Amino acid sequence: MNKLTGSMNVEKVTNSVLAESLKVMETGHSPFEKAIRMMELPVCDAFVKSGRLAPIKFAPGTKVLEPNREIADSFPNSIAASENRILAAGDTLSRRATGKKVAVMFSGGPAAGGHNVVTGLKQILGPDNTLLGIKAGPKGLLKGNFFEITDDHVCHVMNTGGFNLMGTDRTKIEKPEDIEKVKYVCREHNIDAIVVIGGDDSNTNAAFLAEKLFSDVKEDGSGVQVIGVPKTIDGDLQLGDELPISFGFDTATKIYSEQVGNILRDSSSSLKYWHFIRLMGRSASHVTLEVALQTHPTIALISEEVRRRDITLPEIVDSIAETVIMRAKKGINYGVVLVPEGLIEFIPGFTTMIDDLNDKMAQFKDELIHKDIRGQLQFIYSKLTQTHGELLESLPESIKFKLMADRDEHGNLPVSKIETETMLSGAVKARICELDASIRFETLNHFFGYEARCGASTVFDSAYTYNLGATAGSLILDGHTGYMASLTDLDKGARPLGIPIASLLDIEIRKGKPAQVIEKALVKLDSPAFVYFEFRRNLWAENDLSNSPGPIQMWGPTSRQLPKTVALNREYNSLNFNFSAGQMD
Amino acid sequence: MNKLTGSMNVEKVTNSVLAESLKVMETGHSPFEKAIRMMELPVCDAFVKSGRLAPIKFAPGTKVLEPNREIADSFPNSIAASENRILAAGDTLSRRATGKKVAVMFSGGPAAGGHNVVTGLKQILGPDNTLLGIKAGPKGLLKGNFFEITDDHVCHVMNTGGFNLMGTDRTKIEKPEDIEKVKYVCREHNIDAIVVIGGDDSNTNAAFLAEKLFSDVKEDGSGVQVIGVPKTIDGDLQLGDELPISFGFDTATKIYSEQVGNILRDSSSSLKYWHFIRLMGRSASHVTLEVALQTHPTIALISEEVRRRDITLPEIVDSIAETVIMRAKKGINYGVVLVPEGLIEFIPGFTTMIDDLNDKMAQFKDELIHKDIRGQLQFIYSKLTQTHGELLESLPESIKFKLMADRDEHGNLPVSKIETETMLSGAVKARICELDASIRFETLNHFFGYEARCGASTVFDSAYTYNLGATAGSLILDGHTGYMASLTDLDKGARPLGIPIASLLDIEIRKGKPAQVIEKALVKLDSPAFVYFEFRRNLWAENDLSNSPGPIQMWGPTSRQLPKTVALNREYNSLNFNFSAGQMD
Repeated sequence: MNKLTGSMNVEKVTNSVLAESLKVMETGHSPFEKAIRMMELPVCDAFVKSGRLAPIKFAPGTKVLEPNREIADSFPNSIAASENRILAAGDTLSRRATGKKVAVMFSGGPAAGGHNVVTGLKQILGPDNTLLGIKAGPKGLLKGNFFEITDDHVCHVMNTGGFNLMGTDRTKIEKPEDIEKVKYVCREHNIDAIVVIGGDDSNTNAAFLAEKLFSDVKEDGSGVQVIGVPKTIDGDLQLGDELPISFGFDTATKIYSEQVGNILRDSSSSLKYWHFIRLMGRSASHVTLEVALQTHPTIALISEEVRRRDITLPEIVDSIAETVIMRAKKGINYGVVLVPEGLIEFIPGFTTMIDDLNDKMAQFKDELIHKDIRGQLQFIYSKLTQTHGELLESLPESIKFKLMADRDEHGNLPVSKIETETMLSGAVKARICELDASIRFETLNHFFGYEARCGASTVFDSAYTYNLGATAGSLILDGHTGYMASLTDLDKGARPLGIPIASLLDIEIRKGKPAQVIEKALVKLDSPAFVYFEFRRNLWAENDLSNSPGPIQMWGPTSRQLPKTVALNREYNSLNFNFSAGQMD
Repeated sequence: MNKLTGSMNVEKVTNSVLAESLKVMETGHSPFEKAIRMMELPVCDAFVKSGRLAPIKFAPGTKVLEPNREIADSFPNSIAASENRILAAGDTLSRRATGKKVAVMFSGGPAAGGHNVVTGLKQILGPDNTLLGIKAGPKGLLKGNFFEITDDHVCHVMNTGGFNLMGTDRTKIEKPEDIEKVKYVCREHNIDAIVVIGGDDSNTNAAFLAEKLFSDVKEDGSGVQVIGVPKTIDGDLQLGDELPISFGFDTATKIYSEQVGNILRDSSSSLKYWHFIRLMGRSASHVTLEVALQTHPTIALISEEVRRRDITLPEIVDSIAETVIMRAKKGINYGVVLVPEGLIEFIPGFTTMIDDLNDKMAQFKDELIHKDIRGQLQFIYSKLTQTHGELLESLPESIKFKLMADRDEHGNLPVSKIETETMLSGAVKARICELDASIRFETLNHFFGYEARCGASTVFDSAYTYNLGATAGSLILDGHTGYMASLTDLDKGARPLGIPIASLLDIEIRKGKPAQVIEKALVKLDSPAFVYFEFRRNLWAENDLSNSPGPIQMWGPTSRQLPKTVALNREYNSLNFNFSAGQMD
């Protein structure tokens, strides 16, 4: 497939002026990537001293967190040091620490802005300290797989998306022998501090590491500082005013909003499709809620509401079908339904029913094989627990068939693999046929996912993460450990904070066992963002009030927007962020 | 699901400053949509007279097209009038036509820039002529479903994506009784001219309409002028320097390039996935080629090459598997494969084999039902024609199974529904297991499609379509019919042209019958764009030379880029367009 065609003058093409300029654009040198590297970012006033970037001190603030007592017992060093107080930004560090060796890693799925955390960290540490990158995440830490991060590195990755500078993975460092490995690696490489850029699980990990490495790691009895940075496109790592949002959420939701906005325009142009769109975002529905506020779809399902108000799957299907019919009667035969990725887990009893179904289908494989799908269903009802059998029986027929048929090579149907958007659109179609067969209802199904994790960071995510990096570096140079870097007051100058991570942990049942973890922040039904959504959504369902908020802009009049859910929930008066007037040198 | 929550002060939220500003943003008033409406667009010098927009005259240029003789016989009026000559832009119209009533419609799938065609048309016609919008495409024309397009309308839709101002559909106006209906509607509404904004099929339709409505439509014996405007995201409506590209292609490919660029970064961040991405674009591979030049994926398949070089499906699978293994040996366990939507139709013999398979599976349904999938395959080979049987037998087992299993409720497998990306990644996985089972190969499959048809138009598409609208309006005011509006020299000022549509038609076999249609422009293997791709692709496969060209920018340093395939094929020296210095008032 690769021989060069001989039918024209190849050299003429490959030596042309244009070809020469195309060649030098390879490997991240597109006009866009070149231009964003040069973009100036706003810096919090706290970090600017005589027009230059300078690390700061922290002091315990007034805000005290209340950890679970059982958790407190597991983190004696960390809790004694922090007293569960959030650290507030102070003055510039009076004596600049030098000779520190800091290692930084990405952990978990990528999110836009990670490269700027590293850039902010590198620049606040300055030339008198060393920054090492850990290759391929926690796995690389266990192996001591480091490289020195240079000024050239950060110039190249600044403001670009992805975690490709170092790579990432999802290894958990929990077992005592893994902790010992980390201690050994830190001793060998003389590491003074580790920065963990990750989500709730990675920061849980950081809390444990901070506790275990508190002291007696190195020969002189000193420990290794561990600082977390809050990352996740899902937005489920947040803590009120003190941690308004994790980084990556803004970029991901603006990418999904562009896509959903385009689909909304397509629906009102083509006049004949209902689009069912599943949006990435794990359990919580923050992503879907933000995209709904940006675009005003016909319908957006919010998993937390489904659980809280005990809404069953047939009720969801009925509700969508009613909206379809209501619009059809007005001559509108199109619409857009947003479905959060985690929906299925929030439908009362669904997950355990699927587990039970998987088990019983495996157990009675031989009996099932000779039956058709109706016969299989009839047989399996009685084998499930009564509750599960009743739930399965209550589902629309199309969903029942799909749950029986969509099986992997082991005969299993993992909940995470259920294409909820396809399942729902099929069930709504069946329901509409029952209610009014004359209604035209053509559907298209979509999953918007991976394409938003590694987008170039929005100006907000770029600025936020640069300043988070500077915060993390300051926490290290000021001698702290076990804190997560954060910024507050994003609409009025932004102030750096340090949040004691151990104080965030709680007990949660995971895989049937109690685990000490940072609780995922879910959408609260009494949060301003949800209340506003609830206030408008009937109008969006009845009419076309949709927006197409367009591609992320790095320049021009619309480049400074915050997530709307964040602005609402934090009761800001503006949709734009404001990190003061400071500019980097 | 819709009752307001009572647990907090709902009024406080819904009456907040922020909520008030959110409410006024609904229905296309996001900050982005408001800002782009105000964006100034460059206008070709030809249309600028004393700093104002003015319609122009056209004169036959030197370029003569050579139509198929049989076609020429079907278009006596059109060909006699045009003499197959392309019209070149002349001076400003000396006497401005007034009182003309022009109707405009969208036809076929949406594409970014349609609204600006209408805007340019409206503004060049000026207040002395009337512009009517035809609702919901050709179907609306048959019904006489018109509304007057006002200055307010065009102010609202200017530079926005989609076809939602009027809607669109795919009705074909071919039958004599449909032509009579159009004549009747034009007489009733006193229409002087129709502008058809559409792709190859819609412009074929425009050619027939122009011929049939050439004269004797209205009571005074006059005809109705018909002008086409070249639209399609697929890029398969182009004609060398005279029609460098259809509108919508630039926006769609820049959206796909953003997505693919993000996935490329994700792959080199997560370090563990091969992404197989199918890209929309119908038969031709222009979209895939453009996205490949923008992003440098590991592999991009080009359908036209597959057909021309007679590459079989097993050869494609082998070639991908070899690249996977080659990279794995260098420690690179990730990559991105681009698959054009039309690929399957270009694999020698594939489409007719699937038709044969569908037929035989229906015919021998009763024999097949009691066999397992291997038994079914064994049985069906002998029922197919020898060529088809051999082709099916030669396929990787995973593909054979998929072709047998993926059937709709009628037992059919329509070629257009084959998820080529999933089929290919499965086959590559199976092949790698045969070649070297130690190779890690995890895949994710994607289809990038509808989200790019209705994006906000790039600055290029906005400017191009505004000037195409002005060209179409000028052609009408200057008294022409049967032409397609076009612009040439996009890199040096851009000059308006009129292309005689009938001269573009050829005979093609469609659904087994000869049809007079505009031939789809396919990727030529000796075109500079393909030659450049072939020159670089081995390097892209071996190393990571990828780009993430980012979201479309409307402002700032990177907002003026042309499609790379267009710049290469037209041998421009710049990647940026230049429509002269003229600005609209």
